[in-house]
Amino acid sequence: MKIGPYEYDAFIDKVREFHGSVAPGIVAGGIMVDIARDRLPEGEFFDVICESQHCLPDAVQLLTPCTIGNRWLKIVETSRYALTFYNKYTGSGVRVFLDAGRLGDWPAIRAWFLKEKPKKEQDLQEILEEFQRAGRGIYGVEQVKVKEEFLTVPQHRRSAIALCPSCNEAYRSDLGDECPACRGLGPYR
Amino acid sequence: MKIGPYEYDAFIDKVREFHGSVAPGIVAGGIMVDIARDRLPEGEFFDVICESQHCLPDAVQLLTPCTIGNRWLKIVETSRYALTFYNKYTGSGVRVFLDAGRLGDWPAIRAWFLKEKPKKEQDLQEILEEFQRAGRGIYGVEQVKVKEEFLTVPQHRRSAIALCPSCNEAYRSDLGDECPACRGLGPYR
Repeated sequence: MKIGPYEYDAFIDKVREFHGSVAPGIVAGGIMVDIARDRLPEGEFFDVICESQHCLPDAVQLLTPCTIGNRWLKIVETSRYALTFYNKYTGSGVRVFLDAGRLGDWPAIRAWFLKEKPKKEQDLQEILEEFQRAGRGIYGVEQVKVKEEFLTVPQHRRSAIALCPSCNEAYRSDLGDECPACRGLGPYR
Repeated sequence: MKIGPYEYDAFIDKVREFHGSVAPGIVAGGIMVDIARDRLPEGEFFDVICESQHCLPDAVQLLTPCTIGNRWLKIVETSRYALTFYNKYTGSGVRVFLDAGRLGDWPAIRAWFLKEKPKKEQDLQEILEEFQRAGRGIYGVEQVKVKEEFLTVPQHRRSAIALCPSCNEAYRSDLGDECPACRGLGPYR
C-alpha cells in the first residue's frame, strides 16, 4: 500500500520527521488524502478543510501543496475526523471521513479512534498494521458544497495595514482602532 | 547569513517547496525563529504561538518540531507579525516581532510589510536582498507571560468520544448532544 508517493513505511518515517512522533491519525489522514484526491477532476486546483486540528492537518501538509501558512488549508473544528478537498470557486468538494461504523473488524483502530482504552494501553504497531490491512475500506466519502465564506478571498488580504496607536506594531486596520492584542485579545498576561 | 541549519538561498528553496511560493514573510519568519530560539534556555522544550496565520506558521513548521497538527504550534490571530516561543508549564516566553519602526532604511521590506504598494509592483528579489542585509536588526524582542489557557493540556485530549446521533460520526462528547457540524457550525451548505 502506498500513501501519496511513498511506500507505507516510508510515509511513516516522513510522519515521524515532520510531526515528531508516529501518530496513527496522520497515517489515516494520508489514506484519506489519497481517497479525496482520486475523486477530484484531473488537474483541478483545490483547497482543503480539516474538521479537526488533531493530526489531520499534518497529513495534508505532508502530501499536498496546502499548508496552514499559505491558507490553502483551513481548519474548521467540528471534532469529526474528516477532510474535504474542494474547488474554491464553486465550493464543490469531496469529503472523506473515518467511519466508526466500519471498524467492527479492526479492534485496535477502534480502541484508538473511540478512545476505548487509555493511550498507554494501545499498541501502535497493531494500529498501523490494521490501517494497512484495512486499506480504503473504513472511510466514508460524500459530495459536499462548502459554505460561501470559505470560497472568496479572505477580507484581510485586501485590507490596509496601520500602526496600532498603543503597541506601535503593524496590524490590519479593519480590525479596529487598536490591534486585537491591545484590546485584550492577545495570548499574553 | 544562515536560517536555521540552512544557508539563506537553501532556506528559500525549502520555502518554495513547502509553501508553494517564496513568500517574503516566511523568510522574515525564519529569522524570527532563530532570534527566539537563541534566547531560550539551552535544551528547553517550547511551544510556539504565531499571532498571524499568514506565512509565519510555515516558517515555524519548517524550522522547529512544532506543527499545527501536533499542537505545539498555536495560532492566536491578532494580525501582528509576531511569534512567541514559550515554556508551556510556566508560560514564560520570548516574543519576536517585525518592527515597523526600524524599516526606515529598507524601502522594499516596508512597501511589502505595510502594503504601501500593490503586490504586483513589489520586487521579490529586492525584498529578499534587504532581509538578508538587514539581518536581525529590524526585529523587536520582549519577554512575555503567556495566558493560562495556552499552558494546560487542552480539555479535548481528556474528553470522551461519542457517535453523533444525527450524522453517526465520532466527535468529542463534551461539545454537546450533537456534533458541531449537525448544529450548523460545520463548513458545508
